[in-house]
Amino acid sequence: MRIMYICCMASLLLAGSVSAKVAEIPNDTFSVIHSRKSVKSFSGATVSTENLDKIIRAGMAAPTAVNKQPWSFVVVTDRKKLDALAAGLPNARGIDRAGAVIIVCAAPEQAHMQSKDFAIIDAALASENILLAIEAMGLGGHWIASYPYEDKMKHVRTVLGIPFSVIPLNVILVGVPTGEDKPKDKYQKDKIHWGKW
Amino acid sequence: MRIMYICCMASLLLAGSVSAKVAEIPNDTFSVIHSRKSVKSFSGATVSTENLDKIIRAGMAAPTAVNKQPWSFVVVTDRKKLDALAAGLPNARGIDRAGAVIIVCAAPEQAHMQSKDFAIIDAALASENILLAIEAMGLGGHWIASYPYEDKMKHVRTVLGIPFSVIPLNVILVGVPTGEDKPKDKYQKDKIHWGKW
Repeated sequence: MRIMYICCMASLLLAGSVSAKVAEIPNDTFSVIHSRKSVKSFSGATVSTENLDKIIRAGMAAPTAVNKQPWSFVVVTDRKKLDALAAGLPNARGIDRAGAVIIVCAAPEQAHMQSKDFAIIDAALASENILLAIEAMGLGGHWIASYPYEDKMKHVRTVLGIPFSVIPLNVILVGVPTGEDKPKDKYQKDKIHWGKW
Repeated sequence: MRIMYICCMASLLLAGSVSAKVAEIPNDTFSVIHSRKSVKSFSGATVSTENLDKIIRAGMAAPTAVNKQPWSFVVVTDRKKLDALAAGLPNARGIDRAGAVIIVCAAPEQAHMQSKDFAIIDAALASENILLAIEAMGLGGHWIASYPYEDKMKHVRTVLGIPFSVIPLNVILVGVPTGEDKPKDKYQKDKIHWGKW
């Protein structure tokens, strides 16, 4: 009976350790959505090519109007090029210690009805997937606006050789977070209208 | 010894059942991102208010330019009102068997620099969170465009009493999927530019 008791306790502990292991990696979608934050404080560590590919692959899983996928992605990890980008992006706080940046580009020529509106929306949806993928991997991300600022878009295009017909929507910083940045609770009940406005 | 053996097997089975339970619900972020699809075939079942609130809560966790949160959400479950919406949205395939729709609205007046561009992007990011939340719950979703079509926006505004200053970006169908709709693999290696364009 005592052995039975010990074994049962062992069973519970083992089951508990499995649960704890799952809980340690809060990678379920709702946890990731609610723990995503704009990370500005990075450790300075690099991000692997494999991880960057995985992040962008998540971006390309986003929906696009009439499935046109009017997007491209530029990835920069070279420190000199990151510094060159930073020179024209005064808001890019944290870029000096980020491991990489991803520029999500919208291509109106490839969009449904060659619409700039659809191209921007489609690239924005890919960007949100990218931000969530970064969070899900335990990394940190931060959207620095390029569009709709003409001067910033020109700077990003010049540094990276992006054609004029393509819109660099943003510069997403990717890196290992120090843990300083925290998510915000932005739920506001009165922003939901039930039935009608 | 035999009791020990039985108990150890029980431990493993118990641990296994916990793992299996987790595996049964592929709710990790990457699985959800890659299994999200535009669902057009719904069972006709309703979606609870609690679930709709949870979905919209995920929408409000998206980032916005300078944290302005220039958005609102209209939720419709009433069949007559869904039919009235459908009358002006010829592309809304599946709305007749969806349980609800969520209209994500962009409010330029509340956006950073009162910019329509930022309002649209911010509402788009919330919409992507909503689509992922729907998928994560085992439900199905589908973005029907309202913006940038003047006639569709006018129709949605009229049916739901949305002010002219507010842009109804989309009409997102939400319902119980029949399982007919499948995700697409949209990964294209040549859409990624490493180092420069």
